[in-house]
Amino acid sequence: MSIAEIGEFGLISRVVARLGAGSKTLLGPGDDSAVVAAPDGRVVACTDVLVEGRHFRRDWCGPADVGHRAAAANLADIVAMGAEPTALLVALCAPADLAVGWAEELATGLSDEAALVGAGVVGGDMSSSPTLTVAVTALGDLGGRPPVLRSGAQPGDILALSGRTGHAAAGYTVLSRGFRTPKILVEAYRRPEVPYAAGPRASAAGATSMIDISDGLLQDLGHIAAASLVAVDVRTEAFDVPPAMRDAATALGVDPHQWLLAGGEDHALAATFPAGTALPEGWREIGTVHDGEGVTVDRKPWSGPAGWDHFR
Amino acid sequence: MSIAEIGEFGLISRVVARLGAGSKTLLGPGDDSAVVAAPDGRVVACTDVLVEGRHFRRDWCGPADVGHRAAAANLADIVAMGAEPTALLVALCAPADLAVGWAEELATGLSDEAALVGAGVVGGDMSSSPTLTVAVTALGDLGGRPPVLRSGAQPGDILALSGRTGHAAAGYTVLSRGFRTPKILVEAYRRPEVPYAAGPRASAAGATSMIDISDGLLQDLGHIAAASLVAVDVRTEAFDVPPAMRDAATALGVDPHQWLLAGGEDHALAATFPAGTALPEGWREIGTVHDGEGVTVDRKPWSGPAGWDHFR
Repeated sequence: MSIAEIGEFGLISRVVARLGAGSKTLLGPGDDSAVVAAPDGRVVACTDVLVEGRHFRRDWCGPADVGHRAAAANLADIVAMGAEPTALLVALCAPADLAVGWAEELATGLSDEAALVGAGVVGGDMSSSPTLTVAVTALGDLGGRPPVLRSGAQPGDILALSGRTGHAAAGYTVLSRGFRTPKILVEAYRRPEVPYAAGPRASAAGATSMIDISDGLLQDLGHIAAASLVAVDVRTEAFDVPPAMRDAATALGVDPHQWLLAGGEDHALAATFPAGTALPEGWREIGTVHDGEGVTVDRKPWSGPAGWDHFR
Repeated sequence: MSIAEIGEFGLISRVVARLGAGSKTLLGPGDDSAVVAAPDGRVVACTDVLVEGRHFRRDWCGPADVGHRAAAANLADIVAMGAEPTALLVALCAPADLAVGWAEELATGLSDEAALVGAGVVGGDMSSSPTLTVAVTALGDLGGRPPVLRSGAQPGDILALSGRTGHAAAGYTVLSRGFRTPKILVEAYRRPEVPYAAGPRASAAGATSMIDISDGLLQDLGHIAAASLVAVDVRTEAFDVPPAMRDAATALGVDPHQWLLAGGEDHALAATFPAGTALPEGWREIGTVHDGEGVTVDRKPWSGPAGWDHFR
């Protein structure tokens, strides 16, 4: 059954039935707007859009995968401020011949990913469009802490990482060459594993800056370097190449460090901490902050692409 | 110059330069997320998407018009809860050959419309897409009042309207027949005039239910009737047909009441108030609430289409 057959309001009621309420949901879907608790007196908000053919392919990712990815991309931007996610809103633009089941599974994926952090899908919009597009907004609460910005890194700080990099990029390369394994890489591309708890934990431990790694570690560290007016150096010896990634890299003729250092979409978190900080659980040291500008790898410029530009 | 030529980050910096800060903006664009004041301890949130070819045509609306419309559609959903808008977030999906100036003017339109209510454009996202799409999220603050829901109408209540209906639909019909006048109708389609202050004012005056008229008065009143388990009757004598609309209707062979009662996109507000309420400034009585179900016009069923379905 297509969404044209059941109509906008039929689709909305079926999709809403898939959504669980979050602990901060005061008024969920069904009215002109939702109402979400903001106990801190401030609300953290971000938006991130996924476009078919650009961010996902329906033959590579099922609808629940797309839901997980769309939610994760947004929830990661909330925790990268040191905040706890509270809610998602979702605008779905879809061809009228899209199967109703696809939209329902998308909703399940969004709701399940949000449930990992106790957030609810509280509202949304739907429109027909020739291009399948999922635009998500996430909200969060700072719990009384200041937001951790990109601009606070200081020379002498430790550079640390939580979560994995390169897995989604390796999975993307594997899929784009027509393979379906190694499973660990393909699954990492389909559903990122975001270290959600690491964001607020870094904030509580005194992180001076933090960013979600969505476009590639080196490119995203470039934003910290630019905003903080510092230089950032990454040590490659801090990165183990997992066996599955090493095998895939050899088979595909790729330098695995290109994936690890410049691959996006795993939504790891990078942060800087004052020297001597005992890094909180889930964080590991990967480099240092210095006087200067830009990002280096083992104190040398990186010769490969640093990341992703959505219009190039 | 196209957005492909300046790239994602070049485009972002040009667009952000067009945005004014709102009075509730604590952290604007440039980090992983924005931070907005939520003094009430709750945040009202909604999302509404505009798709080229479905919600706008570039030959009918300039980029600033599209910005005004996208902002207005969302801000209206916030005030329809009785809340004051505080912020917008915007995801722009655009073909890589879109002119940079188009995106800049879009941002100006969004920012200018938000400025009417003191809100800022605090964040966003950009992606390439074959389909030009503007997905907006709005946030708002309830100022200590309960949200005004669709479900609170009571038999005996007054039905009231703030703002105009039918103008945008008439302008749409005029444009779709190849005309560019009457100016008042075409301009109403391009840039809705939303009675923003009327929403919080209705809440303060004790409105029992409220809704933004986006799809058509009768269809949207149907949501109030269904949510409140009541019948709603609209009196046509409460609607004057403005001269420009009467002339256009005659010339185009349209019943102007079809525009007034079933035309969407003006973003008027409809609300119900207890009998005997002195209606606040900007509101006028247009009907009554009864025991029963559904929406009638002069106590009879409406024979024309009631409104708009986005997938039909």
